[in-house]
Amino acid sequence: MTKGESGGVQEDQPQSKKAAKKLQKEAEKAAKKAEKQAKLASENQAGDEEDFAKDRYGILPMIQSQEKLDRVLVHVKTLTEEKADQVVWLRSRVHTSRAKGKQCFLVLRQQQFNVQGLVAVGDHVSKQMVKFAANISKESIVDVEGIVRKVDQKIESCSQQDVELHIEKIYVISAAEPRLPLQLEDAMRPEAGDEEGRATVNQDTRLDNRIIDLRTMTSQSIFRLQAGVCQLFRETLIKKEFVEVQTPKIISAASEGGANVFTVSLSISQSMKYSLKFMFRAEDSNTHRHLTEFVGLDIEMAFNYHYHEVVTEIAGTLVQIFKGLRDRHQTEIQTVCKQYPCEPFKFLEPTLRLEFPEAVAMLKEAGVEMGDEEDLSTPNEKLLGRLVKEKYDTDFYILDKYPLAVRPFYTMPDPHDPKYSNSYDMFMRGEEILSGAQRIHDPQLLTDRALQLGIDIEKIKSYIDSFRYGAPPHAGGGIGLERVTMLYLGLHNIRQTSMFPRDPKRLTP
Amino acid sequence: MTKGESGGVQEDQPQSKKAAKKLQKEAEKAAKKAEKQAKLASENQAGDEEDFAKDRYGILPMIQSQEKLDRVLVHVKTLTEEKADQVVWLRSRVHTSRAKGKQCFLVLRQQQFNVQGLVAVGDHVSKQMVKFAANISKESIVDVEGIVRKVDQKIESCSQQDVELHIEKIYVISAAEPRLPLQLEDAMRPEAGDEEGRATVNQDTRLDNRIIDLRTMTSQSIFRLQAGVCQLFRETLIKKEFVEVQTPKIISAASEGGANVFTVSLSISQSMKYSLKFMFRAEDSNTHRHLTEFVGLDIEMAFNYHYHEVVTEIAGTLVQIFKGLRDRHQTEIQTVCKQYPCEPFKFLEPTLRLEFPEAVAMLKEAGVEMGDEEDLSTPNEKLLGRLVKEKYDTDFYILDKYPLAVRPFYTMPDPHDPKYSNSYDMFMRGEEILSGAQRIHDPQLLTDRALQLGIDIEKIKSYIDSFRYGAPPHAGGGIGLERVTMLYLGLHNIRQTSMFPRDPKRLTP
Repeated sequence: MTKGESGGVQEDQPQSKKAAKKLQKEAEKAAKKAEKQAKLASENQAGDEEDFAKDRYGILPMIQSQEKLDRVLVHVKTLTEEKADQVVWLRSRVHTSRAKGKQCFLVLRQQQFNVQGLVAVGDHVSKQMVKFAANISKESIVDVEGIVRKVDQKIESCSQQDVELHIEKIYVISAAEPRLPLQLEDAMRPEAGDEEGRATVNQDTRLDNRIIDLRTMTSQSIFRLQAGVCQLFRETLIKKEFVEVQTPKIISAASEGGANVFTVSLSISQSMKYSLKFMFRAEDSNTHRHLTEFVGLDIEMAFNYHYHEVVTEIAGTLVQIFKGLRDRHQTEIQTVCKQYPCEPFKFLEPTLRLEFPEAVAMLKEAGVEMGDEEDLSTPNEKLLGRLVKEKYDTDFYILDKYPLAVRPFYTMPDPHDPKYSNSYDMFMRGEEILSGAQRIHDPQLLTDRALQLGIDIEKIKSYIDSFRYGAPPHAGGGIGLERVTMLYLGLHNIRQTSMFPRDPKRLTP
Repeated sequence: MTKGESGGVQEDQPQSKKAAKKLQKEAEKAAKKAEKQAKLASENQAGDEEDFAKDRYGILPMIQSQEKLDRVLVHVKTLTEEKADQVVWLRSRVHTSRAKGKQCFLVLRQQQFNVQGLVAVGDHVSKQMVKFAANISKESIVDVEGIVRKVDQKIESCSQQDVELHIEKIYVISAAEPRLPLQLEDAMRPEAGDEEGRATVNQDTRLDNRIIDLRTMTSQSIFRLQAGVCQLFRETLIKKEFVEVQTPKIISAASEGGANVFTVSLSISQSMKYSLKFMFRAEDSNTHRHLTEFVGLDIEMAFNYHYHEVVTEIAGTLVQIFKGLRDRHQTEIQTVCKQYPCEPFKFLEPTLRLEFPEAVAMLKEAGVEMGDEEDLSTPNEKLLGRLVKEKYDTDFYILDKYPLAVRPFYTMPDPHDPKYSNSYDMFMRGEEILSGAQRIHDPQLLTDRALQLGIDIEKIKSYIDSFRYGAPPHAGGGIGLERVTMLYLGLHNIRQTSMFPRDPKRLTP
């Protein structure tokens, strides 16, 4: 940035002259409109008196980068007793406002933080100015100048409890339409158990107005925690010298099997790699835990002699994530807990590993009728989660050695019992968050298995061929990002942990 | 991992019994085959003599996680003088092999590192064993045990120059097919200027056999550096409290404009955010710098009064990336330089910012004929890059204030001259790597601009609506990951920096 604003060059260009004029006019029109609104706003409230504070409030023209201002704006979260009696500028949303005689209380919000502001008639503030402040629509963005003042009694309803802001200037930067499709207070209220029968907001209304729903302190916390999951995942693996790779999403065989296949073919080029990638699911996304589109945190790793080397790494990575969330994101966890109460997430070190036959035995003992090589249904998974929690006191465990029959063709069969396989799922609070396996690295066995399962060999030729020039034994798995966030926080619908969820019924916003 | 291998449960399940038996048989068959091969290998080379070393080499059965071995395998890169006279186990690929009388030299490779190995007839090694080693196909994966020995003369052809490995055991873990579709030495040779006229490998052959091409030290270095770009991007932004978000790829309006639109709508929910996302391009991917699919490192940020606040952040982030690459990835840079020689990447602090009219003036002075509001053609961009380099000695600069006519509808017009806009591109070595702008945050102006450009308002309704409830002024941009890697390293084709590139002619591998 070595150059200042030059203000552009004015030259006569016949083609664009007309368009330029038109735009100039529009800009002028917009400016005039803003001016008029500001004037109206002040006049409306002025009555007969001359307004001595009329330059201290108003609606500003749209910020179009007209000028560079050196003004320092502070963050709401920095407003504590240490700033008492200082004059500060602040940009924030009007969270709520409440007028009362000669004063108006505004709660000013920035992401998860809010502070109480007070506009009260006095030396700098006129009656008209209080009225103007009281009329600002909720969710509007304002610039305010004010003095930070210590309060005698903690303000329980705000994140900044020890101070309030005595506002002396207030300008609207971007006005919200007066009628909001949902109220933030409603959207943050616990759904069950509000004795006073106050309103809550249902899931569809939330998602139709996701832009506003994402502004609740609960949503802000959920997505900050989710960013934490991504960051902890990478931190842990980078420390272990894994390499991040980007794999293509456009693949020639568009089947789900095809997608899985493609990922795996990479593993021979690097011994340890991870990637954060977008997965697309063609069907079955109408449940509480499925989305048409989700984010997968993938790990693939060459091992030396036994795929448990990889299982240990993956489970260890998840444990690092759980610890990091607990240690760094307590504020977010507590905030979400207020709306969606939940027990803290429990895990063991080392991670509990059960084998499939043991799980079947536990379920049978609990009265479930099922075959030994049958996959777990969702209710059975959940029941198993409860049984494991009772017996081992953990919300996280590995289920190893799935029946070969219920896994994809590229899964390595168990060397000792071909009914089973070197594959595993991992569970959080009784729901699957990762599926993985030792992958077959021998092109002949891979071909045989594909043929046995009736797969068209031509379609997976480039996958099979990728193993012809020396391939190390390897295993891996994909962690569902939205599920980890949901289950760590004990939420009940994956749409809460996807910013703009996609399912068969939803493509917008 | 609290439980050992139980070996599975054997129960009679009528449906799967047959399949199980079949698999068992196959496994036995595979084992027998391996055994036979091993025997054959040793017999072939045995001649008449009894082989005293016959247990010290061979082809092992496929690793199916039969057993857990405590054996420690060392990394090639740790083989230095300090390990002299130690016995080590190593798993690596056979990079090259050369037999010479009673001895065989093997170069053993792991990613970017390699070491010379020697199998020589002696107390532990038989003639037959040397012959076996000499016959192992290149790219096969082997386990070797050997003694690390200091060498008198540096081994110039290997990364580990001060030691070699005197091999006493060698087992093939995964055999490569004897005929490789391309030779790694050829694939690593500088394309121009090989006086001896030795073979090089063309781009299509490389991409058809990307699995092998990715094994060259050049490729390994390119993708390690690329992972570095991602890591530095995140590190820099996380320090500044940006929040990582995941935006959906499935959007209802599938046009390129639509894709751009969608991203932007997020910015109102969080003041500073970044994401690493996959972008898809519908057309124009036949050039040296376009791909059908590429990775975008996106930044969106609310600003206070002027979009240059954002421009400064983005340029600063890129400068942090350049510095980090220079300081942390010198090995990779040097390795790529050996095959593709190139000048070190130059940049200024603060970053040079030019305005569009200045660029047009420079080009006109250099003899280019163009209109003031005309976009830059690719040749003109490159020429401008050379002119800027001459005048300012930098490979990185910002071109600010593009004509409004050549930017999308959601671009904020310049407040002082409506022919121009608050938008910018950033360039590395004369090629665009980022495009960005202040986005219009006023729903009315947004609607007007869309109508002026003949865009169907219905299709972007949810985008426009997202600005109705208070939206801060904001700006952002998208960095093309593959382009940054390509241009930082001075490479000439973007297919070299995409692991599995996709263009209109290529969907596999």
